Amino acid sequence: MGFGVVNQSLVKLLLSRMDDIYARYGMKPRIVGVADSKGSIVSRSMQGLDLKRLLEVKRVYGSVVKYNSNECKLSSIDEMIEDVDAEVMVEATPTNLKDGEPGLTHIINAIRHKKHVVTVNKGPLALAMPSLIELAEYNNVVLRFSGTVGGGTPILEFAKHCLKGDRILSFRGILNGTTNYILSMMEQGLSFNDALNDARAKGYAEADPSLDIDGYDAAAKLVITANWVIGMKSTLNDVRFEGIRNIKQEHILDAKSKGLVIKLIASCSEDRELIVKPMAIDKHDPLCVNGTLNAITFVSEHSGELTLIGKGAGGIETASAILRDLIEIREVISRS
Amino acid sequence: MGFGVVNQSLVKLLLSRMDDIYARYGMKPRIVGVADSKGSIVSRSMQGLDLKRLLEVKRVYGSVVKYNSNECKLSSIDEMIEDVDAEVMVEATPTNLKDGEPGLTHIINAIRHKKHVVTVNKGPLALAMPSLIELAEYNNVVLRFSGTVGGGTPILEFAKHCLKGDRILSFRGILNGTTNYILSMMEQGLSFNDALNDARAKGYAEADPSLDIDGYDAAAKLVITANWVIGMKSTLNDVRFEGIRNIKQEHILDAKSKGLVIKLIASCSEDRELIVKPMAIDKHDPLCVNGTLNAITFVSEHSGELTLIGKGAGGIETASAILRDLIEIREVISRS
Repeated sequence: MGFGVVNQSLVKLLLSRMDDIYARYGMKPRIVGVADSKGSIVSRSMQGLDLKRLLEVKRVYGSVVKYNSNECKLSSIDEMIEDVDAEVMVEATPTNLKDGEPGLTHIINAIRHKKHVVTVNKGPLALAMPSLIELAEYNNVVLRFSGTVGGGTPILEFAKHCLKGDRILSFRGILNGTTNYILSMMEQGLSFNDALNDARAKGYAEADPSLDIDGYDAAAKLVITANWVIGMKSTLNDVRFEGIRNIKQEHILDAKSKGLVIKLIASCSEDRELIVKPMAIDKHDPLCVNGTLNAITFVSEHSGELTLIGKGAGGIETASAILRDLIEIREVISRS
Repeated sequence: MGFGVVNQSLVKLLLSRMDDIYARYGMKPRIVGVADSKGSIVSRSMQGLDLKRLLEVKRVYGSVVKYNSNECKLSSIDEMIEDVDAEVMVEATPTNLKDGEPGLTHIINAIRHKKHVVTVNKGPLALAMPSLIELAEYNNVVLRFSGTVGGGTPILEFAKHCLKGDRILSFRGILNGTTNYILSMMEQGLSFNDALNDARAKGYAEADPSLDIDGYDAAAKLVITANWVIGMKSTLNDVRFEGIRNIKQEHILDAKSKGLVIKLIASCSEDRELIVKPMAIDKHDPLCVNGTLNAITFVSEHSGELTLIGKGAGGIETASAILRDLIEIREVISRS
């Protein structure tokens, strides 16, 4: 679902690594249907679609509907989800934090038709994660979403798999790379508007950057992390959040004079309060990363504070998170 | 094996978390034998030893041999490993990087007698990891060693479990907290000797600090990480290493003037060269942590650079790594 940068990167990743993935994980993923904003195509055979041709058609014609060969037929999105003989749907349509659509409908339909789901689309989870997890459990399918938080940085896996026997008490993180880039540039002397324009010029910020700078994106990731890592059942409504629009040079300089740096921090406290807001943190705090990096510190009961830092976005990085999820789904299926 | 700070912390951890561990992992570990430098005791019943009494006896008399009740008998260490009806041996005797003893003999004996092994002792692994892994596979037992690298920070698990589908090309890290503390204090103006004395006073450095400051400890951890994460078959002999004994204030100041900081870096390059040496790194590099913290950056093929930071030592932290290993061994057993 969706054939933008992320799912195209997934196809490239599969092309370059297919033999190795088969050798290491016994898995040979085929793509049997693809939808983009212009329409969708479904393979007629179990061989699946030709991956090189898929990329080429998209590049030349801007849509997969021109794939157009005997091996495949055109289809509506609803038909595709219901009829195609696929095990997993990968949802990578654009994030919408107002009503979660169209991703939310895609995910619900896929789960109802007993398809496992990998989503990198934050919208449906930020708005309805508790009920989607319940729906997946009821239908006995696996729902995974590594790529929604941290891009390729395995933040959710780390918290879930690497701290067995320990307990995560709270966490705090820089979960939005765009705002971190803007704050880093302001630290170097730029005004908020100049830093925002610089982020736009570099492709880090959208034409309408409100999702990033008003804190929505960080709040959505906070919800997903808190639900997955601490077992909360929260949605975007449970987060108190404010963005960085009102940060001025004087705030930054004032913090600097005290050895502090202003960052947009998303946090889940010990008493389960979810907050996104600009905060001044110590410049030596491991969390204090620059540029578009993401970072998160988990406070554990026995192992102390553990910080994970990595790139928070990028096509191939996010595609690698999808591949991780596919491998994990295969492992879960083979155990059950 | 060994009843110093780490294994005593493990007993405390079990005491405080037993019900929770049982509820979450279906596991109720009993301790059926304990050895310290004065001798060893073995439980006569399957109930195992009384954990509170064990700590109390050690605290009051300095050795478990005074446990001395009808429930247990004195035993030699060899007898204990051979005869006791235990599933796992936890090896926590002091690290010896010359010949690995007595830990090496303990581990080999335990594996030969079909006991799984958790070790936090680096010596045997630094000197003989490839053959110990082979011996464990041949005897169909599990050998785990989370606590040997990073203390409670799950460095080895992260690399092994969180990057499925991706490939780690190289890594570099600060794996010795004592030298990092000394370098951090020199950064603040202390001479090498004053910083070393300060580390001694705080209990971070041993009376003979050579293991830390000459790079042996970091080299041992580098060997373990490279073998586990990249599948190398190296030992301490394969590492080129130098410590921080020759670092002077002038080197630190010179680096500082260029925005760099000198750290003792353990690295595994893309062509599998293992090196430990002081290097000047950018002060904004996520790896650049202060005090006794440990940090490691994995360079992955698709997800970019991933950095993990945490405390590198501590009794309860290292005990939490042992508990993780015990849970993982239980999972491996129950799958096979």
